[in-house]
Amino acid sequence: MVIKMKRAGEGTVIFEKKPSILSYAAVVGKKEGDGPLGKYFDEIETDAYFGKPSWEKAESENLRRSVMHTLEKGNFKPEDMDFAISGDLLNQCISSGYALRGLKIPFFGVYGACSTMAESLLLGSLIISGGGAKNILCATSSHFCSAEKQFRTPLEYGGQRTPNAQWTVTGSGSAVISDAEGCPSIEAVTCGRIIDLGVTDIGNMGAAMAPAFADTIKRHLNALQRDISYYDLILSGDLGIIGKSIARELLLKDGIDVGDKYDDCGAMIFDPNLQDTHAGGSGCGCAASVLCGYILPEMQKGNLKKVLFAATGALMSPTSTMQGESIPSISHAISIEA
Amino acid sequence: MVIKMKRAGEGTVIFEKKPSILSYAAVVGKKEGDGPLGKYFDEIETDAYFGKPSWEKAESENLRRSVMHTLEKGNFKPEDMDFAISGDLLNQCISSGYALRGLKIPFFGVYGACSTMAESLLLGSLIISGGGAKNILCATSSHFCSAEKQFRTPLEYGGQRTPNAQWTVTGSGSAVISDAEGCPSIEAVTCGRIIDLGVTDIGNMGAAMAPAFADTIKRHLNALQRDISYYDLILSGDLGIIGKSIARELLLKDGIDVGDKYDDCGAMIFDPNLQDTHAGGSGCGCAASVLCGYILPEMQKGNLKKVLFAATGALMSPTSTMQGESIPSISHAISIEA
Repeated sequence: MVIKMKRAGEGTVIFEKKPSILSYAAVVGKKEGDGPLGKYFDEIETDAYFGKPSWEKAESENLRRSVMHTLEKGNFKPEDMDFAISGDLLNQCISSGYALRGLKIPFFGVYGACSTMAESLLLGSLIISGGGAKNILCATSSHFCSAEKQFRTPLEYGGQRTPNAQWTVTGSGSAVISDAEGCPSIEAVTCGRIIDLGVTDIGNMGAAMAPAFADTIKRHLNALQRDISYYDLILSGDLGIIGKSIARELLLKDGIDVGDKYDDCGAMIFDPNLQDTHAGGSGCGCAASVLCGYILPEMQKGNLKKVLFAATGALMSPTSTMQGESIPSISHAISIEA
Repeated sequence: MVIKMKRAGEGTVIFEKKPSILSYAAVVGKKEGDGPLGKYFDEIETDAYFGKPSWEKAESENLRRSVMHTLEKGNFKPEDMDFAISGDLLNQCISSGYALRGLKIPFFGVYGACSTMAESLLLGSLIISGGGAKNILCATSSHFCSAEKQFRTPLEYGGQRTPNAQWTVTGSGSAVISDAEGCPSIEAVTCGRIIDLGVTDIGNMGAAMAPAFADTIKRHLNALQRDISYYDLILSGDLGIIGKSIARELLLKDGIDVGDKYDDCGAMIFDPNLQDTHAGGSGCGCAASVLCGYILPEMQKGNLKKVLFAATGALMSPTSTMQGESIPSISHAISIEA
């Protein structure tokens, strides 16, 4: 069955027959399980190593488990998937490569930093809508310890965190999208552009990424001639508490008042007062686990009808930062409806 | 215009109306310019730094230039592109992120290691065929010095290269694919699976990647019920001289004799006797510059009619190698016809 789509400009495509999200799951670590959304996740692993000998292998095991939960919940076998689309924050995306190695699903590796869950769903829905696949597995992960080791300082150094720092979520989310009937479904997508306003402080990623989120939301609403009232919820990926307030302000400057319709996965996943997480959560696994653990089930229950999920990512590396470069950011948006 | 496609199984899709490759360009370094294909490239830069202060910025500048050549040769403006799809070997794909930052094209970051050119063309052609885009820019790069620094040892250490080591190509390639009429065009694609036969020697990437190439070729031919005689040329990405002979042997074991129809970009780009490149070229820029500099123009001239381009990538990182992991590999195939 070929599902038709329409190009609306501004990187936006609207689907006439909407790819459905048939199955999804989220697996997180102990701290995420202790947070406000703890009861919604499919599995909470209290061992930070996930039974593995390194942080990288722990992250990959986390991702593998969420994929297995997703396949099982949807009664899928790996061979039911035409493609898998996955990526993560680790150098050369090794969490994804090793997690999916055993499944033999034709595989597209993606790199969108913390926007990866939205990027994979966006690419997947374009392929399904065009008739290129029946079922696609989309997945991503992050891990606090592997991220600190790679992007900041190894935990053993006991580095002090700045007040505006975010806490990388140990978590993963995955989903199967399909051309079969199902709820919720993806009705439109907007691909992000690389936006860089010159922020160089890697301790303040929310500030670096907020302009990319604002750009994508503006282009999305503009292309589809909609306003905020169309949605029940506009959800950024992991701007955190500081980035969230910057995003709100940036949109307001362009006449878009998100009011009480806006929230951020990074601001939702931890309790900043009880959990010492400063500006909130971050990492690919933040947006992915909040979407797949909390938002999609709420949509299926009918508690949310129209959600614009716009995960955000920062495309820098420690090397580019050391070379004085600013932080290019991106945000991909998926409009999901129940 | 919606271009139709048919799923043939085994990760393979065949296009009824074929996305065209309207413009392409390759920019390489001095060593690649001195090699057997030197006269075919759009630009040869003799300064290894490309006028920039670091190897990473040099690679990014190389990629930017090939993109600008491609747009210019096709009389395109950046805003004519619906999407850009790009990735590279550098941690967090910073060559692509920084190269494309200024163009404001909606951007998908991909990670397929040295298979990236094929991965981006594959994803792009699926999107175009489905009607999700009119024009998509696909691009990738690699740089000998940034790759040595990141994956092996900084050049200043003067590390000795093993006889089976490959030489990372300093080069980039990019192409615009489109739903407009044009030649050559992409008629079918096969998405690679992650294949890992347990090779752990990062000094012998050709051996690690050859099984992924053989797997993809077998699935491609099987899905489309074709044999080798259908093609003028089967081209692997950068297996190099050793990997090429392993690939030939692996296919022969399955009854597929590639005979004189098979070559490898890594074996073509350098002269191993004159250039001290041991097992040949590698890197994202190897397959990309050979495809966009040499193969596509030859197809346009009518010297090649049917080419199966299957770039290969190794999905490991220095960290996974240090942790004793083997090298998972992948190969994506694009069937191009004139």
